[in-house]
Amino acid sequence: MKPVTLKEIADQLNISVTTVSKALKDYPDISKKTKALVKELAQTLNYKPNAFAVNLRTKESKTIGLIIPEIVHHFFSSVIKGIVAQAEKKGYLVIILQSNESYELEKKQIQLLLRQRVDGILISLANGTADYNHLNDVLAQDKPLVMFDKIAKLVKCSKVIIDDRKAAYEATQHLIDTGCKRIAHFRGALLPQNSIDRFLGYKKALLDNNMPYDPSLVYICQCGDQSFEEGKMNARQLLKDHKDVDGIFINTDMVAIGAITEFNEQGIKIPEDISIVGFSNWFMSSVISPSLSTIDQPGYEMGKAAFKQLYKEMQQLKNKGPIVYKEIVLETALIKRQSTK
Amino acid sequence: MKPVTLKEIADQLNISVTTVSKALKDYPDISKKTKALVKELAQTLNYKPNAFAVNLRTKESKTIGLIIPEIVHHFFSSVIKGIVAQAEKKGYLVIILQSNESYELEKKQIQLLLRQRVDGILISLANGTADYNHLNDVLAQDKPLVMFDKIAKLVKCSKVIIDDRKAAYEATQHLIDTGCKRIAHFRGALLPQNSIDRFLGYKKALLDNNMPYDPSLVYICQCGDQSFEEGKMNARQLLKDHKDVDGIFINTDMVAIGAITEFNEQGIKIPEDISIVGFSNWFMSSVISPSLSTIDQPGYEMGKAAFKQLYKEMQQLKNKGPIVYKEIVLETALIKRQSTK
Repeated sequence: MKPVTLKEIADQLNISVTTVSKALKDYPDISKKTKALVKELAQTLNYKPNAFAVNLRTKESKTIGLIIPEIVHHFFSSVIKGIVAQAEKKGYLVIILQSNESYELEKKQIQLLLRQRVDGILISLANGTADYNHLNDVLAQDKPLVMFDKIAKLVKCSKVIIDDRKAAYEATQHLIDTGCKRIAHFRGALLPQNSIDRFLGYKKALLDNNMPYDPSLVYICQCGDQSFEEGKMNARQLLKDHKDVDGIFINTDMVAIGAITEFNEQGIKIPEDISIVGFSNWFMSSVISPSLSTIDQPGYEMGKAAFKQLYKEMQQLKNKGPIVYKEIVLETALIKRQSTK
Repeated sequence: MKPVTLKEIADQLNISVTTVSKALKDYPDISKKTKALVKELAQTLNYKPNAFAVNLRTKESKTIGLIIPEIVHHFFSSVIKGIVAQAEKKGYLVIILQSNESYELEKKQIQLLLRQRVDGILISLANGTADYNHLNDVLAQDKPLVMFDKIAKLVKCSKVIIDDRKAAYEATQHLIDTGCKRIAHFRGALLPQNSIDRFLGYKKALLDNNMPYDPSLVYICQCGDQSFEEGKMNARQLLKDHKDVDGIFINTDMVAIGAITEFNEQGIKIPEDISIVGFSNWFMSSVISPSLSTIDQPGYEMGKAAFKQLYKEMQQLKNKGPIVYKEIVLETALIKRQSTK
């Protein structure tokens, strides 16, 4: 059974398509009797208004686009949950696209979303993204765009972030306060702003405490995504390179769990031999043994705040007012567990 | 800057909108020179074809809908990844909606997707879904629909599943083979077919081995989603109710990890006192201590197979051929780890 059209309803009742359309929309120039007839038949035939046709008129698609590097990722999963919950409340559908940390794919997806005429776009950048023309394209079309978590400072739009530098500083300071003398850092990839900021927070904490900064203690993420395997690999390498390291600040919990697993397997005691602080407070961090001290990063709240800001901008656009960009910084917290003294 | 329209291009070149439209689509009745002029200007002005207008003509939206109970869930995250990867290859956008295990929300989302005129729908049912009219609505409109994982046997459409009963039988048999004499089952909610099938597999394995089936050893999921907390709660209750239980087959890994954590905290030795087998082979199951024996459930492959089947049906529909439904059963495997002897 094909979807029923206005024309079929009109034919069956022997009235015009315009009358059917007006009746369904309760126009005052249509008689009550006709309205009742049309609505009854529409219901009997299970008539659904064509979303595309409606959209052409209202210029709103009631969809937003969401581009994230990775769906299967504890932190982004929470962000998605926050966005979707909020979007549903306001009657928006969310088209979720995964960039796989690829700049090329991200660029293509932005074009797809613009062609699809979404009302707004939420994005967390791929690690590979170093050029921002595709994002400026969005803004040039007066299309609301909100970046979250992995942002580009150079793009002029709203952003929802945490203070990565401050949080990383706090994590490193906790290692120092609990007696660590030589602290390594497993950092993220080179480009993302949050990876840079966490590294800078680590470095500043060392220098503020009169501890030398040694670049050989910084392990850069080689693979695109930050994985369990990377944590194991870096931990193995660290044991070969630097027997004197007694603390590590690790860019994300998944990598930290890999490192803990490797140290457990090699008989290295945590925190007695090496203390570890992670970042993100993934649920599993409280369950593994030893449990992981980490920075709590509010994923669900970030998703919620990002959609709320986008919604605000979509309303500003609708009311023909100027779009007011905002930078929203969410609070983080240090969670102390067994992996530090 | 608003998106550029065909009319603006036509006005600037002093030609008709039809000519512009034809030029952009390489119609043979437009001169090469005009085509070149139009295309150059379109590029300069950053013209994007209006997806809705295009869709009204082709009747294809090149989007599909995906409804899943829960995005933040290791298994579904992998399924999503498989679907999205496959959809992108074929140029489809995926609109992902989360039903939160609610039948009401699921029904609403099906209507939303139909109004949005998606080309097809993939769905894994909410625990609360016991009525299938909303799904039959989809099929009545000749809209391809593929169910995966949590399916309804009564709905006549394609399905991608695993043999839950067989896998659960194998898990329970493994407990029996390793010496367990009194085996409990933490099952899922009452309605989902996979929760029923896993329970039936457990029961059949007991009976085939001449072990009595004791309903008081079956703990039913009380909350909507199967959580870590539920595992802890059931484990606590089991220790109060049945001191003689020496094995548990648990419906899903997350619940099993909760149970392991509770037993660890109470000093119960795994597998010496109680052996545990989970279901799904979540990545974390290999990392916790003791690591969890489980059934490997191929999430990524399931997502891939589900999209492939949907794509096949969308092509069948396009070619005006009949839609051929298929039931695809993917292989599972028992993974033996430290939580069983």
